[in-house]
Amino acid sequence: MAKTIIGVMGPGEGATQKEQELAFELGRLIAEQHWVLLTGGRNVGVMDAASHGAQEAGGLVIGILPDENREQASPYLDIPICTGISGARNNINVLSSDVIIGCGVGAGTTSEIMLSLKAQKPIILLNSSDKLYQFVKSLPYPIPKLAESPEQAIRCIKEFLK
Amino acid sequence: MAKTIIGVMGPGEGATQKEQELAFELGRLIAEQHWVLLTGGRNVGVMDAASHGAQEAGGLVIGILPDENREQASPYLDIPICTGISGARNNINVLSSDVIIGCGVGAGTTSEIMLSLKAQKPIILLNSSDKLYQFVKSLPYPIPKLAESPEQAIRCIKEFLK
Amino acid sequence: MAKTIIGVMGPGEGATQKEQELAFELGRLIAEQHWVLLTGGRNVGVMDAASHGAQEAGGLVIGILPDENREQASPYLDIPICTGISGARNNINVLSSDVIIGCGVGAGTTSEIMLSLKAQKPIILLNSSDKLYQFVKSLPYPIPKLAESPEQAIRCIKEFLK
Amino acid sequence: MAKTIIGVMGPGEGATQKEQELAFELGRLIAEQHWVLLTGGRNVGVMDAASHGAQEAGGLVIGILPDENREQASPYLDIPICTGISGARNNINVLSSDVIIGCGVGAGTTSEIMLSLKAQKPIILLNSSDKLYQFVKSLPYPIPKLAESPEQAIRCIKEFLK
Repeated sequence: MAKTIIGVMGPGEGATQKEQELAFELGRLIAEQHWVLLTGGRNVGVMDAASHGAQEAGGLVIGILPDENREQASPYLDIPICTGISGARNNINVLSSDVIIGCGVGAGTTSEIMLSLKAQKPIILLNSSDKLYQFVKSLPYPIPKLAESPEQAIRCIKEFLK
Repeated sequence: MAKTIIGVMGPGEGATQKEQELAFELGRLIAEQHWVLLTGGRNVGVMDAASHGAQEAGGLVIGILPDENREQASPYLDIPICTGISGARNNINVLSSDVIIGCGVGAGTTSEIMLSLKAQKPIILLNSSDKLYQFVKSLPYPIPKLAESPEQAIRCIKEFLK
Repeated sequence: MAKTIIGVMGPGEGATQKEQELAFELGRLIAEQHWVLLTGGRNVGVMDAASHGAQEAGGLVIGILPDENREQASPYLDIPICTGISGARNNINVLSSDVIIGCGVGAGTTSEIMLSLKAQKPIILLNSSDKLYQFVKSLPYPIPKLAESPEQAIRCIKEFLK
Repeated sequence: MAKTIIGVMGPGEGATQKEQELAFELGRLIAEQHWVLLTGGRNVGVMDAASHGAQEAGGLVIGILPDENREQASPYLDIPICTGISGARNNINVLSSDVIIGCGVGAGTTSEIMLSLKAQKPIILLNSSDKLYQFVKSLPYPIPKLAESPEQAIRCIKEFLK
């Protein structure tokens, strides 16, 4: 039977220190729940930090890389999936996750939130911006959950998985 | 030499009457400038209306379809490109266009605007929402141009192409 | 109404002089029939030569590029489609063409012939190898047509389009 | 650190009884080596049989599905990756595997062998056809290894991984 897969999406190069700390903690907590972590797989920002946290806690980490090879892969991946399809891989991240967490705000992250809405996936926003939230709320889709902390995000995931 | 390609992105099934009228007019004006129109190719909403307007004015229309076949293609396409890659084709729309016009607001359209920011493409927003604009302005990218009418959008495109 | 699209697939860097001459002539003849030429879009080998021939004869040329940008695009394209999906774009070449011509033999070309079989597209092999033909004949699909010359390939296309 | 990923490619609906038996055994042996099995993920043919064998032996199984959802996923997957990119996902199968085994002969399988050649991945052919082998040998790439049995395939993989 398929394992539960939690997708954590967030800024790469532009990630703030806080976003990376939240992502690390989120990865750790996901691993403790024995869920699989899925990220965009690169060795920067939220992707890297979440993978680091999850792997340190003994979790299984899948990275869906934009590239044809592992040159820019996070060292904390168990399973690097080399798509070679560049930014189009964002849709794979979304379609393959049972729940999607947007950790932080950025153009790539927002594209993934939009694709998640279209794919009717449960979405949690952690450390999001008010402007993003106001905009997302204005769209004709179920409103994403807001989480204030990684712990709260985990509680939201449990609600969604019930 | 490659022709100038103008991408018009906008809601599909959820498009309003006004969005479709603007898209039709936009398509017509793009064709009159002898630019190629590129859309998401389906037979609904902004994609269909813009294609209709452009083809009626004698323009060349490219549709980048999500599907493997033409079953849901707009009848107003000259060149239906069947990608079979579903929502991941949004990135192809963006990468292949010299200028991107977001006509209306929706989850798919917003994902394309986000990908356009990442690809550093010139963007024009026509009939956008204030909430989307406020959010986009908060991101660390050049601010898209706002157009009030198809005619103004054409003037913006000419500025970008200079 | 959609134009007739003829896909010409063949080796890139590894193309022989003969393959390029055949491709140039094929492109020219396709343009003379007012069909649209579709290729893999790069500035080498069969893709480039066919595009050159078609554009010189006043035809319309679409190139489905593996890359995110036009850096390696053939200068003879009217419409460069930047997919950013690397070798996965081979399936788009196939799905978007009404008839596929494999001009020459190579690993990429053969992958496109295989995808054409799966997509149940009419296939013509020009300047193919006996080993490829013997292998293709052994698969449980309709047998591709063999053409000895670009002129014969055009006659085969006309048969398929009837 | 990334785990070792072995890709097993082979016919789906058209797989023979023998191909499925070989695939089951191959999956089992791959799991016993503590390698990760990667397949095309669907619930038919070689993909399904290899996944079955690997999961029964306690291995980890990744399936790279062509679809947007899990409706046609093998029940023996641990990690179903929903690509939504249809046949274009064949390139992801290849790029993500350390070694590729073609088990049986078919159009899709052959497209994956061709993409593996281009990606310079080690290839093993198990229960292949002489016509396919003769053709592959004629291409300007390293010649794939032929394996007579799943056990021999495992020995070949070990050679490649040295």
